[in-house]
Amino acid sequence: MNKDIFSVRIRVRYEETDRMGIVYYGNYFTWFEIARTEYFRSKGLDYKALEERDKIFLPVVEANCIYKKPLTYDDLVSIETSMLESSGTSVRFDYTLRKDHMVLAEGFTRHVFVNEKKRPVGIPETVKEIFV
Amino acid sequence: MNKDIFSVRIRVRYEETDRMGIVYYGNYFTWFEIARTEYFRSKGLDYKALEERDKIFLPVVEANCIYKKPLTYDDLVSIETSMLESSGTSVRFDYTLRKDHMVLAEGFTRHVFVNEKKRPVGIPETVKEIFV
Amino acid sequence: MNKDIFSVRIRVRYEETDRMGIVYYGNYFTWFEIARTEYFRSKGLDYKALEERDKIFLPVVEANCIYKKPLTYDDLVSIETSMLESSGTSVRFDYTLRKDHMVLAEGFTRHVFVNEKKRPVGIPETVKEIFV
Amino acid sequence: MNKDIFSVRIRVRYEETDRMGIVYYGNYFTWFEIARTEYFRSKGLDYKALEERDKIFLPVVEANCIYKKPLTYDDLVSIETSMLESSGTSVRFDYTLRKDHMVLAEGFTRHVFVNEKKRPVGIPETVKEIFV
Repeated sequence: MNKDIFSVRIRVRYEETDRMGIVYYGNYFTWFEIARTEYFRSKGLDYKALEERDKIFLPVVEANCIYKKPLTYDDLVSIETSMLESSGTSVRFDYTLRKDHMVLAEGFTRHVFVNEKKRPVGIPETVKEIFV
Repeated sequence: MNKDIFSVRIRVRYEETDRMGIVYYGNYFTWFEIARTEYFRSKGLDYKALEERDKIFLPVVEANCIYKKPLTYDDLVSIETSMLESSGTSVRFDYTLRKDHMVLAEGFTRHVFVNEKKRPVGIPETVKEIFV
Repeated sequence: MNKDIFSVRIRVRYEETDRMGIVYYGNYFTWFEIARTEYFRSKGLDYKALEERDKIFLPVVEANCIYKKPLTYDDLVSIETSMLESSGTSVRFDYTLRKDHMVLAEGFTRHVFVNEKKRPVGIPETVKEIFV
Repeated sequence: MNKDIFSVRIRVRYEETDRMGIVYYGNYFTWFEIARTEYFRSKGLDYKALEERDKIFLPVVEANCIYKKPLTYDDLVSIETSMLESSGTSVRFDYTLRKDHMVLAEGFTRHVFVNEKKRPVGIPETVKEIFV
């Protein structure tokens, strides 16, 4: 499968650090979310419109992160993101965090598509087009 | 006006600290929100039901906090809360944070009541009863 | 290996929800951290003192969560926590989130112990005693 | 006093919204912090270096925000920031949030400068130069 990799940059906020002096581990998942939004935008897909116009939502069913090197305040991090179909009804995003080309963390999230009543729907056509 | 003071206790989370080793200033406003929820509950008013059953919401129109002594991880803090009518359509909550009886911070929030369309509504009767 | 299970309860904060109306997925990891702190406390181990007195820290090297049912504002959740040695230098915590006995999410975190210079140290004796 | 206004742009994160569908009020203070960091950078002052090299910190002693119009996911917001001396030992930042030129919120923070032992120090020369 040909994965199309997209990269976004994040500047670490003071708020994201903790008393250990490094970024709190849960905040990486917020960055993954930003990477997903920007990945969709780079493909011409407006995730906000998917929710507001199409009433389709993309909750997370699994999240994982492996932390290799810590990050701290004001660091500039790039997040490489790719998406693939993980089953007929779910998609998976993979993330690689780098600073100065060094891999700092790797993670993934798995998602299903649901409607306003939180019922699963198939992968929308607008999203399927991105896989091609 | 006779203010009825209610107190709730919070244990500082690791996530709430920052690299200065103390609680990040924005997190105090999350605690104020918990204090509001518990204040209402102590008066027999279920804020979640106000939103879900009555479709009435309580957005913040002003927030303020004065920081006197820093707080750190695992500290146990008490938050004294009182509510008063600040105008015919808005209420004000006052908060005092203490640890071992020492005042660490003082703050307030002002709120209006709005319906699902974000239009202002008067102060609901169920809330007015609390003032008495 | 005999795992000793400990349970802690969390009340969902308004701040922890997102526009989907449910708890934002990254916040589960903050709850896991609270569960770890309280797990240690239940065993007579003060994690804050481990950091401040012994200068030993417990950064996360991997985090995972599987989300089964969503949670929302004001929900009361119990988090069952157990810890086991995953290698000679790392420990693993397992978490099960329940509401009304229904499993809502399951996760784990893996940690190493490091000193002030972020160098790995072995598992401290005070922590090893908990495994017995 | 001649205030030098600096502007930075923020894209609202999904994580920053709450179940009311709008940005949670406490998150504005995180944005104010980003605005401060970028304000200093625009003046050639590296706040991280102030902490790490000069061992000078800038804790908040008061924070305030007035909320005029709500913000939601994916909104692009500009934050205009200015700094002034509010006393011989403290500085004040003023913030104006705009979207499409409409003022959405206004706030301020007051800060003192402290050393590693959390003792107040005067306003550093490197910061004083910015006032000119």
